[in-house]
Amino acid sequence: MDTERSLTRQFAVRRIDEGRTARVIDDVAAEEPLEIRVVHWFKNVPVSDSLAMTMRTPGHDRELAAGFLLTEGIIQGCSQLVELRPLGPEPSNEIVAVLSKDVDLENWRVARNSFIHSSCGVCGKKSREAVMERVSRPLDSDFHVSADLIGTLPDLLRGHQQGFSKTGGLHAAALVNSRGEMQAVFEDIGRHNALDKLIGYCVLNDRMPLRDALLFLSSRSSFELILKAVVARAPILATVGGPSSLAIEAAREHALTLVGFVRGRRFNVYSGEWRVDSTIES
Amino acid sequence: MDTERSLTRQFAVRRIDEGRTARVIDDVAAEEPLEIRVVHWFKNVPVSDSLAMTMRTPGHDRELAAGFLLTEGIIQGCSQLVELRPLGPEPSNEIVAVLSKDVDLENWRVARNSFIHSSCGVCGKKSREAVMERVSRPLDSDFHVSADLIGTLPDLLRGHQQGFSKTGGLHAAALVNSRGEMQAVFEDIGRHNALDKLIGYCVLNDRMPLRDALLFLSSRSSFELILKAVVARAPILATVGGPSSLAIEAAREHALTLVGFVRGRRFNVYSGEWRVDSTIES
Repeated sequence: MDTERSLTRQFAVRRIDEGRTARVIDDVAAEEPLEIRVVHWFKNVPVSDSLAMTMRTPGHDRELAAGFLLTEGIIQGCSQLVELRPLGPEPSNEIVAVLSKDVDLENWRVARNSFIHSSCGVCGKKSREAVMERVSRPLDSDFHVSADLIGTLPDLLRGHQQGFSKTGGLHAAALVNSRGEMQAVFEDIGRHNALDKLIGYCVLNDRMPLRDALLFLSSRSSFELILKAVVARAPILATVGGPSSLAIEAAREHALTLVGFVRGRRFNVYSGEWRVDSTIES
Repeated sequence: MDTERSLTRQFAVRRIDEGRTARVIDDVAAEEPLEIRVVHWFKNVPVSDSLAMTMRTPGHDRELAAGFLLTEGIIQGCSQLVELRPLGPEPSNEIVAVLSKDVDLENWRVARNSFIHSSCGVCGKKSREAVMERVSRPLDSDFHVSADLIGTLPDLLRGHQQGFSKTGGLHAAALVNSRGEMQAVFEDIGRHNALDKLIGYCVLNDRMPLRDALLFLSSRSSFELILKAVVARAPILATVGGPSSLAIEAAREHALTLVGFVRGRRFNVYSGEWRVDSTIES
């Protein structure tokens, strides 16, 4: 959970409060573009390509790229990542992933039949069908947690959100084990990026697939976030905010346990409720 | 501000509260993909192309498409939109925009030299440079508002957020005039979409450029949202959440007045403070 680069920047701004104005120094969430490039193999020739541009908070770019490549379905695991390094002088806003020869990027491109851009991933109907195929097996993990454990998550996460506490403008994604311990937390201006950084951390540290873990996000959940969780094979995704309609539908389709509006000991279980143990039934 | 299609969907979910569980019906923000297609002209031949896929809350798709086309720099105004209609049986998740012959989509593609996808727009360095060129004139509007007017915006907006009040999961974008009146409000699961719907509404109703208006968003502000506001020539953008570092830099570069963390009568002015009149200087 080290911070390679600062998550925040300082600006002199004017604060107006009940008509009074003052000049103050404000901490702000850092945002910069990251270009993710790949070197892949086409008919035994290495080809260099720009794969995606994403607006992200600098830091943990290796994790972000690894997570993006996995959740987009380009790689299946760490063994298909030959190398992952920033391009040019540091701090760099470009990173290149050298893929192993068994990664068929052209085939992936045809399969997606769509444009790729930003960490939102490729969305829409084609993507949905492609992903449904890619992860056709429903999650079969028997991992489960208590309602009490879920109730502790917001306070626990807040203690790890160093960027948010300074700026109020960063999302966080956390990996939580069955004892309710946060094993890794990543922050980013984008909720998709925060989750990709976390999943990429698991890819790079041989923690995949996530059969025995809960993912906890400070954000809402939408379709794209559900897909990322499902591709990483995480059995439970819990969020501080609420889900979209398509998030619920996708979670139910894949037997992902989806929990939303976690506000202390009160929350909603939208899907896969058999993985949440509660004591009192009313 | 009519609602063509419902912003929300209902799901049966399990609510857990202090260990007690109950089955409840929950209102959830609707999310579905929208494919934006264009018919454009290449050497006097009409060409049909898929331009973008975005995950959006259904409703006001014409506004969304018109706003997207303007803020992406594809059209300059309503006169370049020959037709805008949903494809297939309604409710439809596809919309086609027939562009006038003077729109050079190929040239636009080359200029952007990047992938297009989703309403986040094209991000990254190339996009930034392209947009800087496109909107090289700084905003020269002498529109200004009082600090008191800004202080009224959060309460005013909440009264118009019918989707948010039911779901807690929708962003809103509002057009506000110099008297502090909300002239239009649009909601969407994506903050980029909400702003595109609002700008598209202005495009379709001949309200462009937005020289004498304030844009108010329920969300944070990031680089992409600043670009959309600048392309629409709005002089003031105010948000409930905070800005990113790149949002502040882009706003300052274009002389856009950027206001953030609007919480009643307390807020920060990050850029272009000459457009915010405050009475007491401390």
